[in-house]
Amino acid sequence: MIAYQSIQRKRDGGVLTPEEVTELFTSYAEGRLPDYQMSAFLMAVYFQGLAPTELATLVDVMVRSGEVLDLSDLPGIKVDKHSTGGVGDKVSLVLAPLVAALGVPVPMMCGRGLGHTGGTVDKLEAIPGFRTDLSLTEFRSLLERNGAVLMSQTEEIAPLDRRLYALRDVTATVESIPLIASSIMSKKVAEGVDALVLDIKVGGGAFIPELDRGLELARTMIGIGEAYGREVVALVTAMDRPLGYAVGNALEVEEAVFTLQGEGPADLREVTLALAAEMLVLGGVARDRAEARVAAAAALGDGRALEKMRAIIEAQGGNPAVLDDPAILPHAPVWHVVEAGRSGYITRIDTRRVGEIAVELGAGRAVLGAAIDHAVGLQITVKPGDEVVAGDALATVYARTKGAALRAAAALSDAIAIEAEPGPVFPLIGRRVTSAGVEVYHHPG
Amino acid sequence: MIAYQSIQRKRDGGVLTPEEVTELFTSYAEGRLPDYQMSAFLMAVYFQGLAPTELATLVDVMVRSGEVLDLSDLPGIKVDKHSTGGVGDKVSLVLAPLVAALGVPVPMMCGRGLGHTGGTVDKLEAIPGFRTDLSLTEFRSLLERNGAVLMSQTEEIAPLDRRLYALRDVTATVESIPLIASSIMSKKVAEGVDALVLDIKVGGGAFIPELDRGLELARTMIGIGEAYGREVVALVTAMDRPLGYAVGNALEVEEAVFTLQGEGPADLREVTLALAAEMLVLGGVARDRAEARVAAAAALGDGRALEKMRAIIEAQGGNPAVLDDPAILPHAPVWHVVEAGRSGYITRIDTRRVGEIAVELGAGRAVLGAAIDHAVGLQITVKPGDEVVAGDALATVYARTKGAALRAAAALSDAIAIEAEPGPVFPLIGRRVTSAGVEVYHHPG
Repeated sequence: MIAYQSIQRKRDGGVLTPEEVTELFTSYAEGRLPDYQMSAFLMAVYFQGLAPTELATLVDVMVRSGEVLDLSDLPGIKVDKHSTGGVGDKVSLVLAPLVAALGVPVPMMCGRGLGHTGGTVDKLEAIPGFRTDLSLTEFRSLLERNGAVLMSQTEEIAPLDRRLYALRDVTATVESIPLIASSIMSKKVAEGVDALVLDIKVGGGAFIPELDRGLELARTMIGIGEAYGREVVALVTAMDRPLGYAVGNALEVEEAVFTLQGEGPADLREVTLALAAEMLVLGGVARDRAEARVAAAAALGDGRALEKMRAIIEAQGGNPAVLDDPAILPHAPVWHVVEAGRSGYITRIDTRRVGEIAVELGAGRAVLGAAIDHAVGLQITVKPGDEVVAGDALATVYARTKGAALRAAAALSDAIAIEAEPGPVFPLIGRRVTSAGVEVYHHPG
Repeated sequence: MIAYQSIQRKRDGGVLTPEEVTELFTSYAEGRLPDYQMSAFLMAVYFQGLAPTELATLVDVMVRSGEVLDLSDLPGIKVDKHSTGGVGDKVSLVLAPLVAALGVPVPMMCGRGLGHTGGTVDKLEAIPGFRTDLSLTEFRSLLERNGAVLMSQTEEIAPLDRRLYALRDVTATVESIPLIASSIMSKKVAEGVDALVLDIKVGGGAFIPELDRGLELARTMIGIGEAYGREVVALVTAMDRPLGYAVGNALEVEEAVFTLQGEGPADLREVTLALAAEMLVLGGVARDRAEARVAAAAALGDGRALEKMRAIIEAQGGNPAVLDDPAILPHAPVWHVVEAGRSGYITRIDTRRVGEIAVELGAGRAVLGAAIDHAVGLQITVKPGDEVVAGDALATVYARTKGAALRAAAALSDAIAIEAEPGPVFPLIGRRVTSAGVEVYHHPG
């Protein structure tokens, strides 16, 4: 009966007491509340939101639903990065070793891809032998040894979030700001990080495409962080195009390796350096972002970040030779180039569709738990605003069969719009959000 | 995946195609769609509504989910009445025999009480021996023999509605106009009625208290009826007070008997005659409502309606002696009179609360399938607008124990407001709605 009343109250725009929120979610965690009542409640939250007190209580219940790690006995300020999810987002593979190489411990628990977006765990598993299913004991000891660890979410951390996320994913209740914020922040709090940098994606390939809602999400997460004494800084970055060129697991690892070697696509390098600068300042090893950025660029240039990645891969059972010869990564047998059908400017890349095309090739999963093909994917080598001539290469598809390659190429051709005049483009890094407020992002230094 | 997309589209205010609506609800009926996806969809419908094409398809799927009766071989225009539910609403017990006595066949499938409202089936079962769980064969043969039959909903008629209603009832998605309208109309269409009169309750004791939403519900149901060639007329009646005096099953049967004997509370008699007049015109046995009303009043006055009820009760296994001596109905052992604490005017009766008090006494059920106590209940002998003097009797509680009686009396005292000046009161019958539009109700003739 209390569940019914809670659903009804939320439906009607009311605010539940902390006791009611606790009872509702605790009874769900304990299996006393059925999925069908929770999904109705979550849909009501989608429409009515959560008040600050409700949100705080929900985060608290999620944190306490599992183990809460205490990393305070390890030296250094532990800083993690979280992206709200996008297409071609392989930043973590470069950022974690880069920041760790400069002395800030990075305890990173990552997700798998679902829907049109990729996940860091899937990308890491494209590296032969790489293990992401570490125990919490291994997590702690590898963090201590290497200063960085990249593992998948474990059952022990915020198990209630895991169940809620699975339910939201099949009931169209993912795209709710308080639900997204509570899901991310409960895990980060339970994982014992001291500070957090958020990469808030906006644009058509993001779960929340609109800038104003992206900012609201950032502010909501910063507020939760404050309540737990964790400093949170957010950068709002463009997802109206894939980040970098590659979409697909082995292809993205290859691109991350190039970037760790001091090369790689300019936008991937730029976003990585900006996030690294924030992490280095939060981690107390740089006085300001300008100084931090210089340090980070140097660590990419002189191989320190690459060597840190070598240590991480070796420690987690992977073959570090991928850093010297990406050709040992799995490769798809068929490739097909997509050419511009006309001359003009790239005005729009339907980034969500690009992600879906990669999933259709086998690079992602349509249902939870499905197997993925690490070899397949695509590279889009143009960006919105680029001028092209008919016949120019726009993209390359890597597939298992000729048929799959042609289908993907046709779909990709539709997803990349070419027009006579250039259109509006999102700034690569548009805003910076801290507990002090929102500012237009300026390159530090 | 189609379920997910349908939920998402409805959530975002879009309109599903007939194929999508059919697939969604058919897969639910067949057990391929889980409850948690349907409850999320229903909550999205609560917020976004259903477009006319979606509503028509939903009704169609619900009708076709079970048997569709064809009563066309039986003589006469079959007319049913449906109430949207209230407190003390025993109209069907008087109306069905009254209309049948005047030659219009009344095939009535009724519901049980749930929540704060009562149900005709529960009331009928207060009559010793009365069977409401008839087969469809019995339904048809008793309709032919007596011109009226009152039975509970069967598994065969619109089973999808039954499942959806049970889910809505525990997920706070009952109070949605398109869902209410489709639930009622799918059953009436499948039951084979030619025409239907609706009693749309408004006021605090109704599921939809607001007049404008009550009118929207009426128009929605009239529209569905038109699509199936069934004429539907709706009267909007007051549920800012119980109808009649009695709330509780045996007490309500007793009051219905008084009304069939030509006595009974004025408001119960008035609403019954107004609905009867509509049914007699729809049934083709009266030229207009004025003539119909005169005929109906005569049939209450001269015992024809009472004798028709005798035939119905006998045919359905009940003891018709209740019509001569209501004392053979179950009686509660304890009673307690609630007196006015001050002098003034009755300004408000919290009718939903009155229904809840009756449920707490045992007259209704808090959960589906619970047993009920036919003997207990209450009588409220004042109406909003009445002037009372401190110490006047307002109500009588009939209970199993002294404690229960005193608790109910205290709650009832709080539910009946007395103030120095009279307040606004709903008209007993406020509006009449047909396919031609809405009119203020005027007493016919």
